[in-house]
Amino acid sequence: MKDEPHWLSPEEQRAWRAFIRLHQKLTAALGRDLQAHAKLSGADFEILVALTDIPEGRQRFQDLAKTIDWEQSRLSHQIARMTKRGLVAREECAEDGRGAFVVITAAGRKTIEAAAPHHVATVRRLVIDRLSPDDLAALGRISDHILEQLDNIAP
Amino acid sequence: MKDEPHWLSPEEQRAWRAFIRLHQKLTAALGRDLQAHAKLSGADFEILVALTDIPEGRQRFQDLAKTIDWEQSRLSHQIARMTKRGLVAREECAEDGRGAFVVITAAGRKTIEAAAPHHVATVRRLVIDRLSPDDLAALGRISDHILEQLDNIAP
Repeated sequence: MKDEPHWLSPEEQRAWRAFIRLHQKLTAALGRDLQAHAKLSGADFEILVALTDIPEGRQRFQDLAKTIDWEQSRLSHQIARMTKRGLVAREECAEDGRGAFVVITAAGRKTIEAAAPHHVATVRRLVIDRLSPDDLAALGRISDHILEQLDNIAP
Repeated sequence: MKDEPHWLSPEEQRAWRAFIRLHQKLTAALGRDLQAHAKLSGADFEILVALTDIPEGRQRFQDLAKTIDWEQSRLSHQIARMTKRGLVAREECAEDGRGAFVVITAAGRKTIEAAAPHHVATVRRLVIDRLSPDDLAALGRISDHILEQLDNIAP
């Protein structure tokens, strides 16, 4: 580095730290809640949500990795664990050479449907009901704005 | 559940989804950037930041787990890996029976100091410089507000 780094100002630092801390605490709180009430990890839940968002609950492994922005090796381990538990299944498709599908099973759907009401109640309690409609809208708008840039640079 | 769950409204759903998506994408982007430029995972970085925030860079294992809100088993694996790489060390203290300390090593400090300028530049490019000062302040304020509640309910 030739130039002195452009460090964050105290206000920038304060806002960024709060945001990061929120990430840490919220991830942990939602993860504990899912584990306690639905025996799902945050990662299990993320995969099941991604698959239920898709018609037929079925997506190519590589596309799923892209959707949730995970490294393929991490996703591969995760899918292996969830397959053992019967939440998802792998469908190989040798014929077209474009790789296996991951599909949510009936048991997987049942699990996430059972988890959803409690999870939504927790999201309301911890986040949604804490914020005024204006603040919630601002959070959505700010998130979208940062995401535009992230979607441009993502590999 | 006896009552019909109080599902999110379309506006609530939209804002929440954007926020979660931001979470996913930003974690992945910052993690890739740290790995590429500093050979650190997001988890390595989180631990090193937590330790450099403390005088002497030294904290009891259990307090560190609380600070970053990790399960003890996850932290234990992570610290074992980082110890092998010489970034942190464990200091046992049999005498007081309150458990081991984790301490950042000189190599750990050197690594995070070397990583910081590029990391800050990335945080600026992806987040800080994308937002008006008002939006950044709003993000900090909203984060703090949700955190108050989370800090109350955390175990």
